[in-house]
Amino acid sequence: MKTFIAPNPAYEDAVRKMLLSMPFVRWLGLSFEHIAPGRVDFIMPNRPEITFDGKAVQAGPIGALLDFAGGAAAFTLAPLGVMLATIDFSVKLLAPAIGDRFLGRGQVLSAGKSLIVARADTFVLGKLEEIHVATGLVTMRALA
Amino acid sequence: MKTFIAPNPAYEDAVRKMLLSMPFVRWLGLSFEHIAPGRVDFIMPNRPEITFDGKAVQAGPIGALLDFAGGAAAFTLAPLGVMLATIDFSVKLLAPAIGDRFLGRGQVLSAGKSLIVARADTFVLGKLEEIHVATGLVTMRALA
Amino acid sequence: MKTFIAPNPAYEDAVRKMLLSMPFVRWLGLSFEHIAPGRVDFIMPNRPEITFDGKAVQAGPIGALLDFAGGAAAFTLAPLGVMLATIDFSVKLLAPAIGDRFLGRGQVLSAGKSLIVARADTFVLGKLEEIHVATGLVTMRALA
Amino acid sequence: MKTFIAPNPAYEDAVRKMLLSMPFVRWLGLSFEHIAPGRVDFIMPNRPEITFDGKAVQAGPIGALLDFAGGAAAFTLAPLGVMLATIDFSVKLLAPAIGDRFLGRGQVLSAGKSLIVARADTFVLGKLEEIHVATGLVTMRALA
Repeated sequence: MKTFIAPNPAYEDAVRKMLLSMPFVRWLGLSFEHIAPGRVDFIMPNRPEITFDGKAVQAGPIGALLDFAGGAAAFTLAPLGVMLATIDFSVKLLAPAIGDRFLGRGQVLSAGKSLIVARADTFVLGKLEEIHVATGLVTMRALA
Repeated sequence: MKTFIAPNPAYEDAVRKMLLSMPFVRWLGLSFEHIAPGRVDFIMPNRPEITFDGKAVQAGPIGALLDFAGGAAAFTLAPLGVMLATIDFSVKLLAPAIGDRFLGRGQVLSAGKSLIVARADTFVLGKLEEIHVATGLVTMRALA
Repeated sequence: MKTFIAPNPAYEDAVRKMLLSMPFVRWLGLSFEHIAPGRVDFIMPNRPEITFDGKAVQAGPIGALLDFAGGAAAFTLAPLGVMLATIDFSVKLLAPAIGDRFLGRGQVLSAGKSLIVARADTFVLGKLEEIHVATGLVTMRALA
Repeated sequence: MKTFIAPNPAYEDAVRKMLLSMPFVRWLGLSFEHIAPGRVDFIMPNRPEITFDGKAVQAGPIGALLDFAGGAAAFTLAPLGVMLATIDFSVKLLAPAIGDRFLGRGQVLSAGKSLIVARADTFVLGKLEEIHVATGLVTMRALA
């Protein structure tokens, strides 16, 4: 995997502040597990409001987790003061999203001046293994 | 646009019950605007919890609206007793999602025995015009 | 569908020259059926080299047709002298691509200064009806 | 990355025969670099017919390479006698596709009875380094 250098040395603080200022991030209960240049891992707890049937998380919230993971990974590479906005994301479900806690992982694949592309994945954290629940791509655009 | 016939004559009731039983649909405050074979329109109100900054709705909830619109459109074509699950959805943002009310429209493009594909679009309902905010595709799978 | 105005009055000529200068467009045998601001229709003939089995066209060439249709539709809206490059396209197959002639249709959904998004569709032109074979989205970026 | 077991012990032969029987694979000049359960690497040579300008390969042929790589990776996991068909693929361009030889890599992420999802990537093979040119996802369906 490509290695990235963060143009903003205070990228970790910037990512935490930006993401945790978002009401929907707080409502989903996302917490940071890992932050590095081009890479962010979130933990998302399960809760009945985002499930289909009290157990399996719906595609929509899984997509929101992918968007936040990919977007936050991209934001680690934003210069100081530059805001990013999602221009697209895709969600492919690979296995039922059943479990207590989910890992959302964003990994930047390419970072240009105006566009940053990240891969995003969701895993359910089980006692014995991680199961790959969903994958997708997130594209972010720098706002002038 | 292709015309579809609903195999379940009580499709409208089935779609209403199924969707409104979902906690996340209720949390988002979705209401049905139109239901026909292969087509569902939802209204989603704006609210601070789903915005970036109190005004613009984030990509994640827009994606959830597309998923529900496409999924519900597909579900109008499900035989009685057949459940569907999302296997993928994509979201392409076209304009900022700023406004009080959003229209989420799902339109089935093809309906096979095991897979149904729908186009999904979100518009902001302004006083003078509708603005196309997002588009995507949703694929649903029949659960055996 | 939104109406667009072409900033380059000679857009039709520009699109024809640009697309027909591309070796792969010529190899596929694409011909223009319709050109308007934000909209291009191509005809693609079937030929054994792009089929799976002498009859059904493979997903790859269908994707290339979608990319050219969406890209050409976007190019009708490019200012004089501005080049565009594909940043992404997606292909969802809806029906087997069996037939003698295919219609590839690109329709711009949003046109910003740096990014243009188009819907792209492929239909097989049968004697009695058009069958919707594939749909997707194409995003083009203006090269500085 | 998840490990897969091929249900058909002769999967390697089956993949070679299937792919090399396809006229478009032969026209593109694809050769196998690596075949394992759930994983296939192809080499694709550059040639003027697939470029924009004699140098940079167009998005369409890059998409075809991703489709073949993901599809072939999926086909390594098909039971004897089961045919697969592409139901969707996506292409996100990450860097200009300039170079003499390209590596197309397909890696299965999930393999169900009816649907197989693979990640697909294209790299340009340079003298000093591999550059990640494109990424996408391919979904294959088992034909009954």
